[in-house]
Amino acid sequence: MSDRIQPRTLKGFRDFLPGAMSTREHVIEVARRVYRSYGYRPIDTPALEYSDILFGKGGQESDRQLYRFEDAGGRDIALRFDLTVPLARFVAQHAGALGMPFKPYHIGTVWRGENTQRGRYREFLQCDFDTIGTESLVADIETGLVIYDLFAGLGFERYTIRVNNRKVLGGLLELVGLADQTSAVLRAIDKLGKVGTAGVAVELGKTAHATPDQIERILTFCGISGSPEAVLAGLRAEVGAAQTGEEGITHLEGLFAGFEAAGCDPDRFALDVSIARGLDYYTGVVFETFLDDLPEIGSCCSGGRYDDLASVYTKQRLPGVGASLGVDRLLAAMEELEIGAATAAAADVLVTMFEPDRAADYLRMATELRRAGLTVEVYPDARKLGAQLRYADGRGHLLAVIAGAREFESGEVRIKHLTTGEEVDVGDADLVPACRRLLAR
Amino acid sequence: MSDRIQPRTLKGFRDFLPGAMSTREHVIEVARRVYRSYGYRPIDTPALEYSDILFGKGGQESDRQLYRFEDAGGRDIALRFDLTVPLARFVAQHAGALGMPFKPYHIGTVWRGENTQRGRYREFLQCDFDTIGTESLVADIETGLVIYDLFAGLGFERYTIRVNNRKVLGGLLELVGLADQTSAVLRAIDKLGKVGTAGVAVELGKTAHATPDQIERILTFCGISGSPEAVLAGLRAEVGAAQTGEEGITHLEGLFAGFEAAGCDPDRFALDVSIARGLDYYTGVVFETFLDDLPEIGSCCSGGRYDDLASVYTKQRLPGVGASLGVDRLLAAMEELEIGAATAAAADVLVTMFEPDRAADYLRMATELRRAGLTVEVYPDARKLGAQLRYADGRGHLLAVIAGAREFESGEVRIKHLTTGEEVDVGDADLVPACRRLLAR
Repeated sequence: MSDRIQPRTLKGFRDFLPGAMSTREHVIEVARRVYRSYGYRPIDTPALEYSDILFGKGGQESDRQLYRFEDAGGRDIALRFDLTVPLARFVAQHAGALGMPFKPYHIGTVWRGENTQRGRYREFLQCDFDTIGTESLVADIETGLVIYDLFAGLGFERYTIRVNNRKVLGGLLELVGLADQTSAVLRAIDKLGKVGTAGVAVELGKTAHATPDQIERILTFCGISGSPEAVLAGLRAEVGAAQTGEEGITHLEGLFAGFEAAGCDPDRFALDVSIARGLDYYTGVVFETFLDDLPEIGSCCSGGRYDDLASVYTKQRLPGVGASLGVDRLLAAMEELEIGAATAAAADVLVTMFEPDRAADYLRMATELRRAGLTVEVYPDARKLGAQLRYADGRGHLLAVIAGAREFESGEVRIKHLTTGEEVDVGDADLVPACRRLLAR
Repeated sequence: MSDRIQPRTLKGFRDFLPGAMSTREHVIEVARRVYRSYGYRPIDTPALEYSDILFGKGGQESDRQLYRFEDAGGRDIALRFDLTVPLARFVAQHAGALGMPFKPYHIGTVWRGENTQRGRYREFLQCDFDTIGTESLVADIETGLVIYDLFAGLGFERYTIRVNNRKVLGGLLELVGLADQTSAVLRAIDKLGKVGTAGVAVELGKTAHATPDQIERILTFCGISGSPEAVLAGLRAEVGAAQTGEEGITHLEGLFAGFEAAGCDPDRFALDVSIARGLDYYTGVVFETFLDDLPEIGSCCSGGRYDDLASVYTKQRLPGVGASLGVDRLLAAMEELEIGAATAAAADVLVTMFEPDRAADYLRMATELRRAGLTVEVYPDARKLGAQLRYADGRGHLLAVIAGAREFESGEVRIKHLTTGEEVDVGDADLVPACRRLLAR
C-alpha cells in the first residue's frame, strides 16, 4: 500500500478520454481528407531534434519555452515547439528527393513550457499544410479553399476567413515615406481593437515617429472596410499609386475571383486590411479564420505566404504558402458550440450476454453484423439485462441485441433500439436487415 | 553562409517522406477501423510523465533507455517508453469516469534510447488495444479476432497467430514439482530455437535444477505439435491431471471454438505450447503473430491476458487482455513483401496549367472533380507539358487534365491516362464522367 504511486499527469498536460479523443480523431480525419483532396501528402518528423535546429528559430519566447536537455549520449536535444521549423529542416535535408512544388501536410504534437495560468496546454496538436517551391497565385487561392473546406467539413456554418496581403500596407508606407518603420506601424495597428484609433494615433507618433499627416493616411487606410469589391476600390484609391500596393491589389482581386470560381459561399471570406498580426512574418497573402459565434477565442486557422522557408539550412530559395489548423482550440470551440463529432464514440450495436456457454453464438451474431459494416461490441460477461443496458446507455450504443436461453430455444433474438425503446423479435436470418432498418430511423 | 546550420536528424530518429508516411497512415487507418468495429474507443495520454510513474515499471533495460530530464520547473520527468504503463496510470486515475469493462485503443509514439546498431529506432509508433475489467473468455477470443482482422485488413494472406495459455505450462510444472522454478524454465524454453533440445536440457538442469525425469517431461511437453485438436489431445494427456492445466486446456478449446464461430480461416491460427516469451508477464492466454514469409522479423502483434493492470497505482483489481501492433516492424515487412498501401500517395488527377490568366477555369475544373469525390491537384505554374507530366509521373498521379489556349477556345479539354497513355478529348460537361470512366480501367 505505502509503495503505491499517486496516478497523476504533469501540469499543463492532459489525458484524452474516449469522448474527447473521438472528436479529436474526427477533426484529424476531416483534415486528412480535405488535404488529400487537394493533393497534399503526409510527412512526419521526429519529436526530438538537435537543439541548434530549433534554438533561436521561433524567437526568445520559444527558446525560453523549449523542453531542452542532454540525452544519454551527451547530445544537446529538444522537443519540437512547432511544425514549421522541423518542416524547414526537413525540406532542406530532402529537397533532392522531394521535387518541387512540394505539398506536404504534417499532423503532429508539439511541446511548449508555457505559463499554464492562461489556460494553455504545454502539449498540443498542430495540423499544418504547405505548398512549397512556387509563387503561384493558384497556390494562394488553394490555401484559402482548403481552409474553407476544412471548416465546412467539420460542420461549421458561421466562420469568416479574413484575408489580407502584406503588400497593400507596404504600398501605403512607401507612399507616405514610412517604409523603414514597418514593424513599429504593424505593432501599433495590431492594438486597434484594444486602444482604438486615438490610441493607435498616439502610438504611431511615439514609436514610428509618424507625422500627423502620415497618421491620418494610415488610419484612413485601416478604416477601409465593406465588401471585397468596396475594399479593393478603396485600396486602389489609397495605395494604387505605389507599385507594391498595386501588386497587392491585383493579387487580392485574383484571390477573390478564385474563391468565386470554386463556388465558395462569398460570405465566408472577408478582405480585412486591419490584420496586422502575421504580417511581420509573411510576405504576401495572410489568412486568419474566426468563428462568428466565438470570435474571442481568436484565429483557429492562420497562415500566409513566405518568401523563403529554409534559408537557415540551405541556400536553395524555397518560397511557399501554407496554414496551420489549431486543433485543440477548435475542439474547445466545437464543445462550446455543441458542434458534435460525426463519429459516435461507441459501437452501433451491443450484443448482450446471458449464456457464457454460448459464446460462439454471440460471436457469430457479432461477426455477421460486423461483416455488414456495423460496429459491434459483445458484452463480455453474463450479467443482468438491466446492468448491461445501463452500460449501453452510458456508452452511447444505439441498438442492443438480446438473446438468452429462451431466445436461443425459439430461434429468435430481440433487438432493442436504445433511444426510442422500440423492440423487435427476429429470426436469425433477419438479424442484419432488422438492425439496419432500426439504425436507419 | 557560415551561419548556416547543417540540416540533420538525431541518430536513431528519422523523417517520414510522403511515400512511407502514406503507408503508415494507411496502417493506422486500418487499425482504427478494425478496433472501432469491435467497440474499442480511442484514448491518448501525454508523451511526458513524472519519472516516478514510468521508472521501474518496465524493468532495468527500460529504465536505462528512458529519456529522463528536469523541466524548467525542476520536475523530474521522462518520455513514455511504451503505452502500457501510461494506460495503467490512466485507468487508475480515471477509473470512476470510465466504467468497466473498458475497451481503449491507443495509438502513440514512444521513445527508447536503445542501441541503434541493431537497426532499431529510438522513436516508434505503438498501436495498442485492451479490454479491461473482465476475465471473460469472449474478451480473449475477440483479442484474437481483432489481430486476425488487422492482418487481413492490411492485405496479408500468409500469417500465423500463435496462441498459448500460461496455465498449461503451469499445470505441467505443478505435476513435475518445478512450480517454483517457472522463470528459469521459461528462460530455458525460450532458447529452444537457438540451442535445440539438448541445449535446453543442459540449461534446465543447470538453472532450474531439474532432474533428468523432469527435463524429459518438459521436453515432451514442448514437442507437442500439430493441429489445435492434436495439441489439445496431447496436452490433456500430459497436463490434464493438474487443475491449472485442465483450466488452460478448456480455455484453449473455447478460444479455438470462438475463432471458428467467427468464420476465421483456421490456418491463420496455431496452438503453440513452445511460446515462452511473454509468459512471465501474462497470466492466461498469450498471442504472437508471425508473417509466414518473414518469420525472422519476429512477432508483429503480441499480447495476452494479465491479472491486474494497475496495482502500482490503485487498489482496484483490473484484469484484462490486450495486444500491441508493431506498426514500424509491419511497415518494414510491407515494403519487403511489396504489400502496398491501398492509398495512393498522390491525388488521382493532376490539372495541368498553361494559362495563368485562366486560373479560375483550372480551379473550376478541379472543384468539380473534387466534388465528385476525386482527389485533385492543380499544378501551380505554367510550364511546358513535358515538365508537368514528368512531375505527375514522379508523384504517381493517374490522370492529367490538359487545357491550354486552344482547348479553352474549342470548349474541350484533353484527359490523359498516365499509365496507359490513352487520351480523350471531352466537352466541359463530360469532364467528371470521363475521368471516372478512365479511372475505372
